[in-house]
Amino acid sequence: MEDDELLERLRDGEVALHELEDVAPADTAAEARRRYVAEVEGVALDEVGAEHDAEEATNNVENAVGATRLPLGVAGPLDVDGEHASGDYRVPMATTEGALVASTNRGCSAITQSGGATARVFEDSMTRAPVFRVSGVGEAAEFVDWLDENLDVLRDAAEETTDHGELLRAKPYVTGDNVYVRFAYATGDAMGMNMATVATRAAAEVIEERTDAELVALSGNLCADKKPAAINAVEGRGRTVAADAFLPRELVREKLKTTPEAVAEVAQRKTLVGSARAGTLGANAHAANVLAAVYLATGQDPAQVVEGASAYTTASVRDGNLYVSTTLPAVELGTVGGGTRLPTQKEALELLGVAGGGDPAGANARELAEVVGAAVLAGELSLHAALASNHLEEAHTRLGRD
Amino acid sequence: MEDDELLERLRDGEVALHELEDVAPADTAAEARRRYVAEVEGVALDEVGAEHDAEEATNNVENAVGATRLPLGVAGPLDVDGEHASGDYRVPMATTEGALVASTNRGCSAITQSGGATARVFEDSMTRAPVFRVSGVGEAAEFVDWLDENLDVLRDAAEETTDHGELLRAKPYVTGDNVYVRFAYATGDAMGMNMATVATRAAAEVIEERTDAELVALSGNLCADKKPAAINAVEGRGRTVAADAFLPRELVREKLKTTPEAVAEVAQRKTLVGSARAGTLGANAHAANVLAAVYLATGQDPAQVVEGASAYTTASVRDGNLYVSTTLPAVELGTVGGGTRLPTQKEALELLGVAGGGDPAGANARELAEVVGAAVLAGELSLHAALASNHLEEAHTRLGRD
Amino acid sequence: MEDDELLERLRDGEVALHELEDVAPADTAAEARRRYVAEVEGVALDEVGAEHDAEEATNNVENAVGATRLPLGVAGPLDVDGEHASGDYRVPMATTEGALVASTNRGCSAITQSGGATARVFEDSMTRAPVFRVSGVGEAAEFVDWLDENLDVLRDAAEETTDHGELLRAKPYVTGDNVYVRFAYATGDAMGMNMATVATRAAAEVIEERTDAELVALSGNLCADKKPAAINAVEGRGRTVAADAFLPRELVREKLKTTPEAVAEVAQRKTLVGSARAGTLGANAHAANVLAAVYLATGQDPAQVVEGASAYTTASVRDGNLYVSTTLPAVELGTVGGGTRLPTQKEALELLGVAGGGDPAGANARELAEVVGAAVLAGELSLHAALASNHLEEAHTRLGRD
Amino acid sequence: MEDDELLERLRDGEVALHELEDVAPADTAAEARRRYVAEVEGVALDEVGAEHDAEEATNNVENAVGATRLPLGVAGPLDVDGEHASGDYRVPMATTEGALVASTNRGCSAITQSGGATARVFEDSMTRAPVFRVSGVGEAAEFVDWLDENLDVLRDAAEETTDHGELLRAKPYVTGDNVYVRFAYATGDAMGMNMATVATRAAAEVIEERTDAELVALSGNLCADKKPAAINAVEGRGRTVAADAFLPRELVREKLKTTPEAVAEVAQRKTLVGSARAGTLGANAHAANVLAAVYLATGQDPAQVVEGASAYTTASVRDGNLYVSTTLPAVELGTVGGGTRLPTQKEALELLGVAGGGDPAGANARELAEVVGAAVLAGELSLHAALASNHLEEAHTRLGRD
Repeated sequence: MEDDELLERLRDGEVALHELEDVAPADTAAEARRRYVAEVEGVALDEVGAEHDAEEATNNVENAVGATRLPLGVAGPLDVDGEHASGDYRVPMATTEGALVASTNRGCSAITQSGGATARVFEDSMTRAPVFRVSGVGEAAEFVDWLDENLDVLRDAAEETTDHGELLRAKPYVTGDNVYVRFAYATGDAMGMNMATVATRAAAEVIEERTDAELVALSGNLCADKKPAAINAVEGRGRTVAADAFLPRELVREKLKTTPEAVAEVAQRKTLVGSARAGTLGANAHAANVLAAVYLATGQDPAQVVEGASAYTTASVRDGNLYVSTTLPAVELGTVGGGTRLPTQKEALELLGVAGGGDPAGANARELAEVVGAAVLAGELSLHAALASNHLEEAHTRLGRD
Repeated sequence: MEDDELLERLRDGEVALHELEDVAPADTAAEARRRYVAEVEGVALDEVGAEHDAEEATNNVENAVGATRLPLGVAGPLDVDGEHASGDYRVPMATTEGALVASTNRGCSAITQSGGATARVFEDSMTRAPVFRVSGVGEAAEFVDWLDENLDVLRDAAEETTDHGELLRAKPYVTGDNVYVRFAYATGDAMGMNMATVATRAAAEVIEERTDAELVALSGNLCADKKPAAINAVEGRGRTVAADAFLPRELVREKLKTTPEAVAEVAQRKTLVGSARAGTLGANAHAANVLAAVYLATGQDPAQVVEGASAYTTASVRDGNLYVSTTLPAVELGTVGGGTRLPTQKEALELLGVAGGGDPAGANARELAEVVGAAVLAGELSLHAALASNHLEEAHTRLGRD
Repeated sequence: MEDDELLERLRDGEVALHELEDVAPADTAAEARRRYVAEVEGVALDEVGAEHDAEEATNNVENAVGATRLPLGVAGPLDVDGEHASGDYRVPMATTEGALVASTNRGCSAITQSGGATARVFEDSMTRAPVFRVSGVGEAAEFVDWLDENLDVLRDAAEETTDHGELLRAKPYVTGDNVYVRFAYATGDAMGMNMATVATRAAAEVIEERTDAELVALSGNLCADKKPAAINAVEGRGRTVAADAFLPRELVREKLKTTPEAVAEVAQRKTLVGSARAGTLGANAHAANVLAAVYLATGQDPAQVVEGASAYTTASVRDGNLYVSTTLPAVELGTVGGGTRLPTQKEALELLGVAGGGDPAGANARELAEVVGAAVLAGELSLHAALASNHLEEAHTRLGRD
Repeated sequence: MEDDELLERLRDGEVALHELEDVAPADTAAEARRRYVAEVEGVALDEVGAEHDAEEATNNVENAVGATRLPLGVAGPLDVDGEHASGDYRVPMATTEGALVASTNRGCSAITQSGGATARVFEDSMTRAPVFRVSGVGEAAEFVDWLDENLDVLRDAAEETTDHGELLRAKPYVTGDNVYVRFAYATGDAMGMNMATVATRAAAEVIEERTDAELVALSGNLCADKKPAAINAVEGRGRTVAADAFLPRELVREKLKTTPEAVAEVAQRKTLVGSARAGTLGANAHAANVLAAVYLATGQDPAQVVEGASAYTTASVRDGNLYVSTTLPAVELGTVGGGTRLPTQKEALELLGVAGGGDPAGANARELAEVVGAAVLAGELSLHAALASNHLEEAHTRLGRD
């Protein structure tokens, strides 16, 4: 069916807006929907329809009308010395915030000139925490004992649903007549939320069959997905990554126009004391900015920047030189699945050399996590230095937004 | 200069990668940069180069190589009864998460059928909080007194830098020899971070001239921008918005396949108790998802989803029917400036009828904020209902990601 | 009636355990109750009955059986240079934790030798935040407007209930169909919780009469009393106090057996970074210890140590010397009312020269708040120094507990 | 030496105030110190000197001058059905807050009449988390691997220092060049902080000998002791206890003068939503009050009320009746050591039947923990009910404080 005909049927109410893909190819459906919406609302939607990936995106969006284009820049090269990452990386960043790529690029340059960033992945597990209703704390205690004794049964059920996932832990948190069980999985190169959800559903079914606990919700908010939760900031979710770098005093002076002492003072007064005073989970300058830009460029879920933003940045003076570090408890990303399959996102992953499944499984996701950690470090270094040399506002003004 | 020539000069090291826009139009520069990076890294970057907005985006990105395309869907119509918003809205959502638009759409449909969502803006101010160094708490006390007596002087200096901004407050937070001053501004239709930064810089200069306090950093992290901070969750930042709806029992049953009691139980055990148990700022199911998708579609800053994610969702049973609400302390958005000028983003704002400056100033931003509040409510309602009817995982599996 | 006779009537069930004070003087009643409980439970209660203040304590406890004796030590002299406090103070500390008084005393000594601590009160208000039920966010918006326009009416109603209290603010926090109104009062020399509660009850009655909002609970937990809440840590409750001191390098070396650099490193790695990593409200070493001991000695409410514990301690090196500060957002105390009337507690206040009402009203409470701030500073300095010189555990072992 | 003679030597400066116990028995020393301080400060200290336990308290306080007397009441009988606790308990409460014992007593009575409270201990470990300095994240990763491989070595070193303590876990938290290792111990009937500190010191020495990590502070604030930290609220510290009760509708009506629905509404709007809105760790009405009173009566550390205050209280309606629960992640207490040895405190423990070491080791501490959980539940029930029946303020006014 052509999109003209579809449009007619939409006007006549013969087909609903969300059913178009049932009766036509994705491209045609999106075209008809866009034209219909534009007509009804009396607006033009030419730009969003100019170029998009309707066929490829059918698993990523519903009620498609086209695409939003985000400006894409590259920062780097960024020299990363990780367990999985090694060498120079060009970091793709999709953003609309003027000065962000330039600032990160400056950080990359300073780090690379000083010998590169070290990066490591410390924890690696994706969590899903259903909430079960029990009759009270007595039954809760029995249920906790049951869980402890039946982890193998749950593991079998959970792992039957997945090729790559492995159940690592299932930790209960009792609260009155609620028992939250935080299941943690190794998820290979996937970000792993869907895998964890499917596997946990299977485990929850076993629980419902074998105990008196009743499932209330497959997510009980101790996961905690896309919420600023202490449980993630403290215990981690996805990949926990730390990155650091040493910068010679001269480099700080010439490249960053400031001193190690001034950077350390900003890190102290703003990032540590200021964050504490504001009641912040994490302590950093703008980790979310770099995370959002790299996540968007590489097909990650931008809402997971929420957890990622609880990063901890430190800076100190060592023998007159500068030590900087950033620790990210919750870097949630993958190189397969989700948005990573889309054309522009896939190219960005290829630019980093981490597209698709790694060998062994998980290697690509961990490499990406280390690069992301180092890129956030570059952003943190650059902004701390900019504040230290007191020209944050000038940079913004010049590169412009309002 | 043609991009072939530029490419040659890049290869020869005659021009640096970030300087291309100095010697060629933005389109040509981006093309040359893309070709060079693709060549050096040995990858194809055809997709990211297929369609982009190099000229329009020069204030939004540096080291441009093209564009990332995000799938764009529409949810709605969503009936919103706000102080500024009124009538049916088609909500543009840019996302790669399968099922998100469909789920939000279902929520919109249920809300609209039940008579629409009520929405209100409660607070409206953008903040910037520089940190000053003083000699100690004695001088801090004097500085606090000085601030109290000289607010007018600071206001004059701050407001001289802006056409639309107004300084509302300048509240000091002393911590030893640090004084954080949280400046709050009315910012019209702009999100207002840059305006607030420029104005605060001017005020800080006055402070440095007239007192012994020394500026350490123009942002002292009590702003708090793009960090999960209690100060925002409690006191708000940008627009504080609340939205709610009443749904008849029958509608909950037929449309959402569950009951008001089941939804209220999920809201209780997962959203309130679960969030408390996880140490979360805010208490919601997935506010960040809807925020991220609408922010991206309409040119907002996706990193500000971090603050926005501290939303509070409640659900309760009233006379057998369902009451649901979502309160978002920190909705940071604008209809002018930043990414709102880009072609696809501008179309999305036009779809909502809020592109550009409002009349009076601020009316468009507030209308958008109310629509965003209602859209988050739709997403919250839909996910709570889906969990209540126990099919979260099935929906994800069917609509697919991993 | 004698206590023998009372005991008989208790055994016969003629009088209930909690009614004894209705039929006999407090001393007799307590004696009878103690004997009865001892008899029924088969234990001796001689020690708790040895010396107590039954008559004086009738407003402080019910079902009295005697007294718990807490060991009382004194730290100091502590030289405090405040706005209200001035000169040397002997700080009474009631505690069972070995080494605590000795450690605080060491801090006092170091501070006093170095010229004393500076201390200031920054905010001074007691809060009570009832929660009202409204029909939804639409009515909430109207209610917020009403509050703004009727603050004077509420002030009149509130202040009619109190001689010393003044209503300073009434700030609304909307959350769906809940409106929390945080009333803040100046409370003179009283800690002020009861005053605030009574006054807020009167204001709430006016609200119920004049609006559609219905009172659900006179405390809606945004007060927030005796809970670790960000709203207190950020905005303060009771008195917000900061204290600091400068210690010459030589003194740090000789008296504290360490260096300014080592103390600053502990403050950085443990107190700032460690607290951030643990998701702590506040950032200090053991402020709660000193607060609890001084609160107990002077008749304050030990449960309010909870809020007080969100203190911020910093240490840094200045020209080779040591700067230390502690900022306590929520010091909740008084010199009249509550436990301050009891014999031993009153003596402790007299030892500090702050017993009873001040002149002007509030002067005594503020003086006490400044002394408390300085005493916490002494404790913080001493523990940071002890950790820096690596002998925490030895001190505990020697002075002993397990 | 007599105290007259000591006093003379103090006046002459021949002996320092803190050295008196070196030259005289504790009683004499305290008497002399009290007289000297009274003389110098020009105040009477007769009451604090009236009755005290100088000899017994030498490990609990330094610079002793006497004792603070806290009014002691009893609540109960409280019927507790625990794993360790069983039967009726009279709960000793030391407090100066009028209405607290009466209110708790009312809750005990309602619970006991309804069949008692169920209580369970879920986690049981005391933590100490030193912070180590490493060269950077690369070395941190090696250190984490080393820890994983050498837990047995650390266990041997740690357990050599203690008769009852067992090392359960040693979990590392990396943050840049800081590694925090949270050691967790089973501590028998002791609260266990000192035991954990001594054992961790021994383990830390092994670490310093065998790795390049250097100890910065034996406590790195991830313990986290006496600070309101999410790590405790989420993961627990000391004993994690939950208690609950079911109350028939009629009992709620007659005894508590309210309805299950009204109590549940207060628990929802105040305790869950209000606490979330205030950014609180935990969600309860006044857990700290009951904890402080029982801790003080039984010789616990009142500063540890800080962690204990992060309790979670829920209330809901089941078949027209009331279900209430309280979950306390961090109940830190013991029945041996610390203040439990003092005369009045020991009597209070005997009143509960838990004085001294249990059989098996830990049984007494767990029994006490369950009783404390049930007592907090009683306090929570009573206050929620009082608010629901709207007479909080009246109760306070009548029983009086200001």
